[in-house]
Amino acid sequence: MPRAVLPCRAVRGMGMINLMLPTIEWRDDAVVMVDQRKLPEHEEYVHCRTARDVARAIRNMVIRGAPAIGVAAAMGLALGVRRSRARGAVKLAAEFHGLCELMAASRPTAVNLFWAIDRMKAAFSAAARAGRSPAEIAAALETVARRIHDEDVASCRAIGAHGADVVPDAGRVLTHCNAGALATGGYGTALGVVRAAVERGKRVAVFADETRPFLQGARLTAWELLRDGIDTTVIADGMAGPLLRAQRVDVVVVGADRIAANGDVANKIGTYTVAVLAREHGVPFYVAAPVSTIDLSVASGDGIPIEERSERELTHVGPRRMVPDGAGVWNPAFDVTPHAFVAGIITEHGICRPPYTESLAAACGRVAQEA
Amino acid sequence: MPRAVLPCRAVRGMGMINLMLPTIEWRDDAVVMVDQRKLPEHEEYVHCRTARDVARAIRNMVIRGAPAIGVAAAMGLALGVRRSRARGAVKLAAEFHGLCELMAASRPTAVNLFWAIDRMKAAFSAAARAGRSPAEIAAALETVARRIHDEDVASCRAIGAHGADVVPDAGRVLTHCNAGALATGGYGTALGVVRAAVERGKRVAVFADETRPFLQGARLTAWELLRDGIDTTVIADGMAGPLLRAQRVDVVVVGADRIAANGDVANKIGTYTVAVLAREHGVPFYVAAPVSTIDLSVASGDGIPIEERSERELTHVGPRRMVPDGAGVWNPAFDVTPHAFVAGIITEHGICRPPYTESLAAACGRVAQEA
Repeated sequence: MPRAVLPCRAVRGMGMINLMLPTIEWRDDAVVMVDQRKLPEHEEYVHCRTARDVARAIRNMVIRGAPAIGVAAAMGLALGVRRSRARGAVKLAAEFHGLCELMAASRPTAVNLFWAIDRMKAAFSAAARAGRSPAEIAAALETVARRIHDEDVASCRAIGAHGADVVPDAGRVLTHCNAGALATGGYGTALGVVRAAVERGKRVAVFADETRPFLQGARLTAWELLRDGIDTTVIADGMAGPLLRAQRVDVVVVGADRIAANGDVANKIGTYTVAVLAREHGVPFYVAAPVSTIDLSVASGDGIPIEERSERELTHVGPRRMVPDGAGVWNPAFDVTPHAFVAGIITEHGICRPPYTESLAAACGRVAQEA
Repeated sequence: MPRAVLPCRAVRGMGMINLMLPTIEWRDDAVVMVDQRKLPEHEEYVHCRTARDVARAIRNMVIRGAPAIGVAAAMGLALGVRRSRARGAVKLAAEFHGLCELMAASRPTAVNLFWAIDRMKAAFSAAARAGRSPAEIAAALETVARRIHDEDVASCRAIGAHGADVVPDAGRVLTHCNAGALATGGYGTALGVVRAAVERGKRVAVFADETRPFLQGARLTAWELLRDGIDTTVIADGMAGPLLRAQRVDVVVVGADRIAANGDVANKIGTYTVAVLAREHGVPFYVAAPVSTIDLSVASGDGIPIEERSERELTHVGPRRMVPDGAGVWNPAFDVTPHAFVAGIITEHGICRPPYTESLAAACGRVAQEA
């Protein structure tokens, strides 16, 4: 399975070299990630040399996107154990579990983060139970982290293969936020569907909601799709309504940060609005996400914790204050789209259809069987 | 009738003086307006000394809001005639009509602009037919421009009086863009409804969509409501969906830039989305606008010209490029909300209800009778 990569024009300071670099990469002494806060103007790479650095990068949105932060958390934990100076299994275990808590506290909504942490915990326990040395445990964790990364890319490609069918030839796809290579180990979920359709020879045009307040659509989705030569038009979030009303969209495809057992979908703030508009105009609304995004322990969207982020994301644009001092601000980072709005959830095992309580459980069961 | 004014902390360079200054003000040698592009950080006043200056200020959104640009256009034309050096009635008429064309070309959607120009044309013709001198014609135009301003403020107060009933006590109002004192001669249309409800002793909390790309909600609505001590919370446009879903909104009130004979409403981009969401959640969606915003010559929203503005409003935030070079951009400044989504159109003559073809014609007929 090839590692999905992003074509990269240049590493800062190295000139215009046609390097291929991934969204996130494991190096023996660091986890390296492109700084998504600075795209598209600046393509800079952050070298995280400790697990704490990785947790901070997740919290500060150097890296974002549910699958990508799962990969980052796994690599961060592997890095933390590798660099640990703890002597003895007990001290190492204590340190490792401390790092797990640190990582789990970085962001609350995307369940892939907790899923990845759980896998790393299981790997740690297995290696520790087998009496491995700290170096061997570190190597085992590194192996699992790399596997999580590789599996995520493979999942994205499988999601693309299943999802490409929902995009018609000459299809116009509306997406929200960035569920692309930058949000995953590579290739993307929603944008993986787009890429797979393009790879099958379909002509595809993408409309990208700019996605306030962080502008993932304007900055990231447009950036990575243009690198693949895919026709991309950016609109403000409030323009999706007239776009759909003008019948200029054939299908909506978005990603997800957590999917409840009943098919309710938590995704980037603004997604619910797109879903309501899509139904109003009879346009199918699909969610593309790996099974690691499904949380069967949560019955419905009401049980998904929704992160609220700093007011400053709304009050300021760069250094300039846009909201006057004294105004209240509400800045939820995600919203929940009830399952009734969702035409299908595209996973690596196929497209789950309503009733989701059954189809999602079946998809998760299949993973359990394979494991 | 008192001139509605904005409390103004300071005129640039004059220190913290509790002056009362209007959104737009006629001076004998200039039309003075607060620069709405620079609020809330900077409260600067633009002195337009020629009609061309006023047209440029409208085009560049120094002043915006359908009623306000109607007032500005009228004052600009009066200023143009006052400063004209044309000798003789024929040359003055030619110059005046040239200025009317210039003014009409400034922005295409808000019909108040054309309505105000038509009133000024009628005043010019009447004065010219009566054999008035250029100075007398200038004085007549100034009188009409001042009257348009005063009438607009009076209309806003009447809109407020009629509309206050739709806001319950302890009501939570969602609005989009800025339909306030800054968008009118003073007091505001949608925000006039809010102000009137507050003046009746109701407790009112306002949620303001930030309103991308120009951020009128974040910058202007919050600024002017806070000056009146009205509780205001700013949200990104994509947050209105979960806000409505959480039953945190009792009523939506927005302004309008042009209303077709059938009640279809052109207003700031993003309004249609709010209307769809409001209906989805059973929340009444009201439009507040003076009768000068109604265009009976246009049968439906399909006939309303929608301005598309510079890509740069979306691609850049300040000097920083947010959309990568090569991406397409669609930047319509307005959208159309079909009348079926509109619970009522609050005018200075009362609330027009469906069927709008009848109620709007009646409201306009009443104006014609009074004229």
